[in-house]
Amino acid sequence: MIDSDLPYSGRIVGSEHRFAVRVYYEDTDAGGVVYHARYLGFFERARSDMLPLAGVDYLARMAEDGSTYVVSAADLKYRTPARLGDALTIISTVERIRAAGVVVHQRVMRDADVVVEGRLTVAFVGPDGRPRRQPEAWIRAFEAISGGAEARR
Amino acid sequence: MIDSDLPYSGRIVGSEHRFAVRVYYEDTDAGGVVYHARYLGFFERARSDMLPLAGVDYLARMAEDGSTYVVSAADLKYRTPARLGDALTIISTVERIRAAGVVVHQRVMRDADVVVEGRLTVAFVGPDGRPRRQPEAWIRAFEAISGGAEARR
Amino acid sequence: MIDSDLPYSGRIVGSEHRFAVRVYYEDTDAGGVVYHARYLGFFERARSDMLPLAGVDYLARMAEDGSTYVVSAADLKYRTPARLGDALTIISTVERIRAAGVVVHQRVMRDADVVVEGRLTVAFVGPDGRPRRQPEAWIRAFEAISGGAEARR
Amino acid sequence: MIDSDLPYSGRIVGSEHRFAVRVYYEDTDAGGVVYHARYLGFFERARSDMLPLAGVDYLARMAEDGSTYVVSAADLKYRTPARLGDALTIISTVERIRAAGVVVHQRVMRDADVVVEGRLTVAFVGPDGRPRRQPEAWIRAFEAISGGAEARR
Repeated sequence: MIDSDLPYSGRIVGSEHRFAVRVYYEDTDAGGVVYHARYLGFFERARSDMLPLAGVDYLARMAEDGSTYVVSAADLKYRTPARLGDALTIISTVERIRAAGVVVHQRVMRDADVVVEGRLTVAFVGPDGRPRRQPEAWIRAFEAISGGAEARR
Repeated sequence: MIDSDLPYSGRIVGSEHRFAVRVYYEDTDAGGVVYHARYLGFFERARSDMLPLAGVDYLARMAEDGSTYVVSAADLKYRTPARLGDALTIISTVERIRAAGVVVHQRVMRDADVVVEGRLTVAFVGPDGRPRRQPEAWIRAFEAISGGAEARR
Repeated sequence: MIDSDLPYSGRIVGSEHRFAVRVYYEDTDAGGVVYHARYLGFFERARSDMLPLAGVDYLARMAEDGSTYVVSAADLKYRTPARLGDALTIISTVERIRAAGVVVHQRVMRDADVVVEGRLTVAFVGPDGRPRRQPEAWIRAFEAISGGAEARR
Repeated sequence: MIDSDLPYSGRIVGSEHRFAVRVYYEDTDAGGVVYHARYLGFFERARSDMLPLAGVDYLARMAEDGSTYVVSAADLKYRTPARLGDALTIISTVERIRAAGVVVHQRVMRDADVVVEGRLTVAFVGPDGRPRRQPEAWIRAFEAISGGAEARR
């Protein structure tokens, strides 16, 4: 057992999850900017770490019965490019809570600039891939962090 | 010089570019399906190969003055998962032609099933990253393959 | 059912599997060259397509009992960079055949230039991740394409 | 300007740089484990953050004259798979210091288990891609953190 850090997972401030990311070569392309698909990975990292911080222990549930979250829609606007070495912040807010999923609004910020803005629809599915109702405790957990989010439907 | 194939680049059938893709481990995730960000890469491959087939030699222009195409928006609907070993077809059609870019509708098909559907807004930009007018010959080339596409605006 | 191509899978010429790859933005980094990790993906694609062509239907076996091939070692030399739009050929040869795996020599070529050279050790493992003996028919299939490969051990 | 964290960059303990990484879906494949190429990305992140902590400000130099570090060889042994949600630590040590580059030994650990072990040869190159002598101050910086590393050659 080595003396090492726990992985960084960002933090929840009000209704926002904030998650800092450094841009490495692996994220960039020959245009000198972050490759557009990589932001979906940044968004996944942020959502994956927001969930346990919010009280949604999806990995334990997945181990138990194979249920998990999958992305069912993504709407992305690329505003300004990010570059090698940039320090970015991913800001995620739960925008809508449904019986079988959530809509998460996510922004990539560099200081005050919006780099990318996305709306990610995430569905809770069983091992058969079909949508299923999220645990009631998780819906309450999402409500607790969503602040002014639209009512559940 | 070895005796080898030229890279596969799909083909244009009517107003569609069709591009076959095999799913490898690199495309999949621990859910057993293609990772959602990978489809943006499949879409890029298809668009990149459609352009020269349609008469838009963007690589030559980029070498000349640093202009290129960048994705400025992506709207994706994930319909059904694809899996390791699947033979997929990416179908791309130019849906709208603008002075400084195009909107491309792209679908990932597995036989008759739509796996993912996307609408990719692609902007032509100068080396400074600012939108610039596409060459007139390219606009005509896009019109030639877009068939019933909305008029240029 | 659309009229579409089958995915390209290269071809076997003597003891070599040759597989053409185009370099897209997704493969490159801000240095203007192919990101070094991407070549492992190119190598995987080539090996995955070489196997069925050689008579090793690993996907059927995986569906049956969960056995598969995994990379257990990779030794890579980067000789010269590849760039956006390059037409590359991956040349793969089975270099050594073991009871529970193979060593594959793989090169990325651009015309007569070696871009990357790799030696990939691939182990056949059961669903528990432990090495297991490859089917006898597959060992013979590897021998058939390996030409002057070292004797099985 | 939002109130946000700085990106995590690990820390130097004796002659080791330790860098914690969480495994996300983007890192995994359909085998349920981390895809073998992804470790090269983890290694790049760790090296990129180790350099400034050690006093090697390569990004400033790159902005100045286009010089940078590139991977010229990688020797990887995969010991045991890592899985979704795992907390890993990348341990990097400078093993050899050359005029125009360094050899970095890197391990991916999960608690006391070695997941992957790698030896990465990194070359300092000019904008023409040719090896060039590293700044003298950087060689001293590498010596300072390399502890028992072999003498420069």
